[in-house]
Amino acid sequence: MTFEYGDAVQQARVRPGMTVGELVDELGKAGAYNGGSLWQAVNIYEQMLRDEEALKFFGLSGAMVPGGMGGIVAELIRRGHIDILVSTGANLTHDVIEAIGCHHYHGTSDLSDAELCEEGVNRIYDIFLPNEAFIRFEEFMQGVFSSLPNGSTVSISELLNRIGSRLDAGILSEAAKAGVPIYCPAIQDSMIGLQYWMFSQTNRVVVSAFEDMHGLLDRCFEAERAGAVFVGGGVPKNYILQSKLMTESGFDYAVQLTGDRPDLGGLSGATLDEARSWGKLTGEARAVTVYGDATINLPMLVAATLERLEG
Amino acid sequence: MTFEYGDAVQQARVRPGMTVGELVDELGKAGAYNGGSLWQAVNIYEQMLRDEEALKFFGLSGAMVPGGMGGIVAELIRRGHIDILVSTGANLTHDVIEAIGCHHYHGTSDLSDAELCEEGVNRIYDIFLPNEAFIRFEEFMQGVFSSLPNGSTVSISELLNRIGSRLDAGILSEAAKAGVPIYCPAIQDSMIGLQYWMFSQTNRVVVSAFEDMHGLLDRCFEAERAGAVFVGGGVPKNYILQSKLMTESGFDYAVQLTGDRPDLGGLSGATLDEARSWGKLTGEARAVTVYGDATINLPMLVAATLERLEG
Amino acid sequence: MTFEYGDAVQQARVRPGMTVGELVDELGKAGAYNGGSLWQAVNIYEQMLRDEEALKFFGLSGAMVPGGMGGIVAELIRRGHIDILVSTGANLTHDVIEAIGCHHYHGTSDLSDAELCEEGVNRIYDIFLPNEAFIRFEEFMQGVFSSLPNGSTVSISELLNRIGSRLDAGILSEAAKAGVPIYCPAIQDSMIGLQYWMFSQTNRVVVSAFEDMHGLLDRCFEAERAGAVFVGGGVPKNYILQSKLMTESGFDYAVQLTGDRPDLGGLSGATLDEARSWGKLTGEARAVTVYGDATINLPMLVAATLERLEG
Amino acid sequence: MTFEYGDAVQQARVRPGMTVGELVDELGKAGAYNGGSLWQAVNIYEQMLRDEEALKFFGLSGAMVPGGMGGIVAELIRRGHIDILVSTGANLTHDVIEAIGCHHYHGTSDLSDAELCEEGVNRIYDIFLPNEAFIRFEEFMQGVFSSLPNGSTVSISELLNRIGSRLDAGILSEAAKAGVPIYCPAIQDSMIGLQYWMFSQTNRVVVSAFEDMHGLLDRCFEAERAGAVFVGGGVPKNYILQSKLMTESGFDYAVQLTGDRPDLGGLSGATLDEARSWGKLTGEARAVTVYGDATINLPMLVAATLERLEG
Repeated sequence: MTFEYGDAVQQARVRPGMTVGELVDELGKAGAYNGGSLWQAVNIYEQMLRDEEALKFFGLSGAMVPGGMGGIVAELIRRGHIDILVSTGANLTHDVIEAIGCHHYHGTSDLSDAELCEEGVNRIYDIFLPNEAFIRFEEFMQGVFSSLPNGSTVSISELLNRIGSRLDAGILSEAAKAGVPIYCPAIQDSMIGLQYWMFSQTNRVVVSAFEDMHGLLDRCFEAERAGAVFVGGGVPKNYILQSKLMTESGFDYAVQLTGDRPDLGGLSGATLDEARSWGKLTGEARAVTVYGDATINLPMLVAATLERLEG
Repeated sequence: MTFEYGDAVQQARVRPGMTVGELVDELGKAGAYNGGSLWQAVNIYEQMLRDEEALKFFGLSGAMVPGGMGGIVAELIRRGHIDILVSTGANLTHDVIEAIGCHHYHGTSDLSDAELCEEGVNRIYDIFLPNEAFIRFEEFMQGVFSSLPNGSTVSISELLNRIGSRLDAGILSEAAKAGVPIYCPAIQDSMIGLQYWMFSQTNRVVVSAFEDMHGLLDRCFEAERAGAVFVGGGVPKNYILQSKLMTESGFDYAVQLTGDRPDLGGLSGATLDEARSWGKLTGEARAVTVYGDATINLPMLVAATLERLEG
Repeated sequence: MTFEYGDAVQQARVRPGMTVGELVDELGKAGAYNGGSLWQAVNIYEQMLRDEEALKFFGLSGAMVPGGMGGIVAELIRRGHIDILVSTGANLTHDVIEAIGCHHYHGTSDLSDAELCEEGVNRIYDIFLPNEAFIRFEEFMQGVFSSLPNGSTVSISELLNRIGSRLDAGILSEAAKAGVPIYCPAIQDSMIGLQYWMFSQTNRVVVSAFEDMHGLLDRCFEAERAGAVFVGGGVPKNYILQSKLMTESGFDYAVQLTGDRPDLGGLSGATLDEARSWGKLTGEARAVTVYGDATINLPMLVAATLERLEG
Repeated sequence: MTFEYGDAVQQARVRPGMTVGELVDELGKAGAYNGGSLWQAVNIYEQMLRDEEALKFFGLSGAMVPGGMGGIVAELIRRGHIDILVSTGANLTHDVIEAIGCHHYHGTSDLSDAELCEEGVNRIYDIFLPNEAFIRFEEFMQGVFSSLPNGSTVSISELLNRIGSRLDAGILSEAAKAGVPIYCPAIQDSMIGLQYWMFSQTNRVVVSAFEDMHGLLDRCFEAERAGAVFVGGGVPKNYILQSKLMTESGFDYAVQLTGDRPDLGGLSGATLDEARSWGKLTGEARAVTVYGDATINLPMLVAATLERLEG
């Protein structure tokens, strides 16, 4: 037997003024560790976006909107690169907050949190959000909810579409405009949920936990092929992956950006290979995980992929 | 100004046959890093369990039941140490699987996942679950669902209680017996959810996404004090913490066991101090995070705390 | 082909007053993730310590002495369970500090470091060390160095043995008493090194960087079998592993406790399997990595292993 | 008291063909987590490189040369941006291997390491290095060593300079050409060390462990200001930081790229703030840590900084 090597490692070269796509190509020539994985991720994402038969999922976890990554997701929707978005409730909450004109602020991670609380400042690592935002958020949300016909039953995605339709910027707005469904299985687990609880003290509208699964699974059955980008893990990752458990074939393309680690057993850090054993990915699926912080790796992934598509 | 030190570090001593509680006390004398934090966690958990006025939450994330940690949670319920459990859907799925007599198996993390798939074996890091389990799971779940009155609306916790009532071991069973509610905001995001989707192809029962929030928040308003143990982050952590946002005061005790890291911004790795800025913890709350693998730290926490309570 | 599973996962059971060894056995029955790995580590370490033909290495990295873990290493030497110790210079520096009667103190990780500096307090995560300790350290070290014959050439291990011989507690002292050599390839990279620099301003003693390799490799060639425990990675891990590159066979037993991760490519987080490709471990070597904080995992490993040996 | 916020978070925008510097500026506008830190790192590194009075250190740990990052270090030396390099022995070993015309190869992390060993392939995560390289390495190294005058005493940096002078590409070569000293305190802990052991079986040259400290500390005393970039932690980080312990002032600029975490207590994951308590950084020093994989963050840091300097 002869053992076959891959290409030789080339020492990466950087030069002033190089584009993001050029840098990622250098990471591919080096080809090691997460730098090499990021290059593979761009290769896979490029192929996935060029594949017109592929249904394109995007899973959004982690405090990405407070961290300034929501604009990239909104842009991907606007460009037609996301067919189905699955998000945590928190990202949607913060998307509303920005869309109604409130702001998150640059802060630090080492102030006294008890003092921040007294000042009315909520901390997300090194980002600050003043309490005022939630006052305006409440006003906006109660307005949206009050438009729901009393006694009706709605799905979570309908509720989110209703919110997005009243906004003119951000993820929810772009999704509503583009007709992209947003699924948020744990919608209760967010400030949107708490607002809904307040609304439901005096109103009777049932939000069906399971209703969205029909539309989602129908799309999965219809799709020729499917691909997914996962930012973080959590519910969005699992919900997207499990959606292909009922169909005969799994995802064909998958890119995962996560800071977790596999050896703890949790899904958020699990390799995409693990998903092959479940049939959530096909045996031949092109898939890669880039471990690291998505506030670096998501912009790089998207900038480099767009450069290839449009460059 | 005179700077005040804490106690001097004592080099930890181990001896053959020492109890877990004795070992944790040695970690406390050493007092450094996560070993010191584990000792603090036992101190806090002991005080929390001794506080009869405190409402006791438990958040369960990560693949803990496949990893053999479900028995400890069931035991804590049986002993009356959990008042409210918030879980991922996956842990409840695997709890059912074990309760109906199927098993997870010791495996390895380095086999070919494509081959595992062909063999009908699903992998969770180094744990294997054969497909047969899901056949029996389907049969059981459809049986439970078929008992739901057609046309009715139920909450998620009612659905879970109905499942637990038909089992005689495990978390769902112990919770049903003890009248401990299990909240699972993202129930759709699990094999239970997929089974429900199948059931709902031909049946009409609405599961209300938000219904459980009323009971949960009522308990929060009534409670004199509150404490929480978080195994992993995800939806359970956030859902528990946000439940105190509407009350005038936050949690008084909190212990978090997580393998994530704070600098990525996500809630799962966020410090408990961050929660103080939001008012989810009181400014004076006793709280500590132990970073590491919960398959080690949860058994140690519980064994050492029970030793103190009953020793 | 029939696929063979391992044992069924048993849900771990904890009870008040159980011993550390009993807890580790429960982790083995659960058998998942790092809990399962810790049980394997105890199995391997027990076999290694029972093997009288095996040369026993111990690699010590990370701030383990300030974190109160030095006493366990000293105890292992005293019990005859370490034949060769490889350490960072920092651990030996802090061992001297404790041995001459100074102390590290419990602190916190969130004070202002600039203020700590003004107060004369040095921080190691949540451990404090006052500057006074270094004044007494200097006096002690210069005393040791002044005993070196001017114009002579010594090896690093001789220098460390000379230090240990003047102490009556701790790692250096126990090693000197037991005749266990301590190798510290980067001795310059420590406060011991800075003290030596001061000494060498006015004295002429050459410390040979490579001299110790002869004794080390002779032991490796003579040994029937060999085993190693690695606490952290760094120079100690690599130096121990490379010592078997020249012999015909690699290590037969290896246990690694580390908080690093493999995907970054560095040796500290590398799996022990990787070492097999280099021949540093034999193909059949029993080896396991437990990812996590050694201030928890080292005491558990040692307490459970001693319980098996002496229980 | 009025609480002051920083700037509002701006959602990062990416566009096809943007430069690396433009992307980093977007990360700065987002300003969160490690993306925000990377932008700060570029700010600090730019100021440090523009400061002609600052002595510029570079610490190199982790398997960076096998991972294709050595070329960037060599380029920084060539451009005059490194005054003093501190490296692990492994990176220098692999630099020699590439410089004498051997190659590392793209591989995978999931082959059988026992089989790789039989095939004569050494693995570094997903990079392969065939044994043949070490045969040519041995020949080259023994040639270099044989030029050492028998009976002489040399410093480690002299030895490394002698190696670099015989090469015409890579880190050692560029450093020799530029007169940049390379310090490698743990030189024994590498294949260079093992080659030296072979040489010293029949030759008598003493390599002094401490000799280099004089030149290093003299430079520190002379320097008006000082700055450092740390890729990884380990000996290079500590050795650079401790070099300022003897002078009256600490480092003025510091950028750390690491994948480790602070809560384990080890220096490799320690914050740069911790170094302020020791006086290794001045109280006012500009310093930031970017957590993540250096195969992504180092090329970004350097490309963006050079774009600012030369753009």
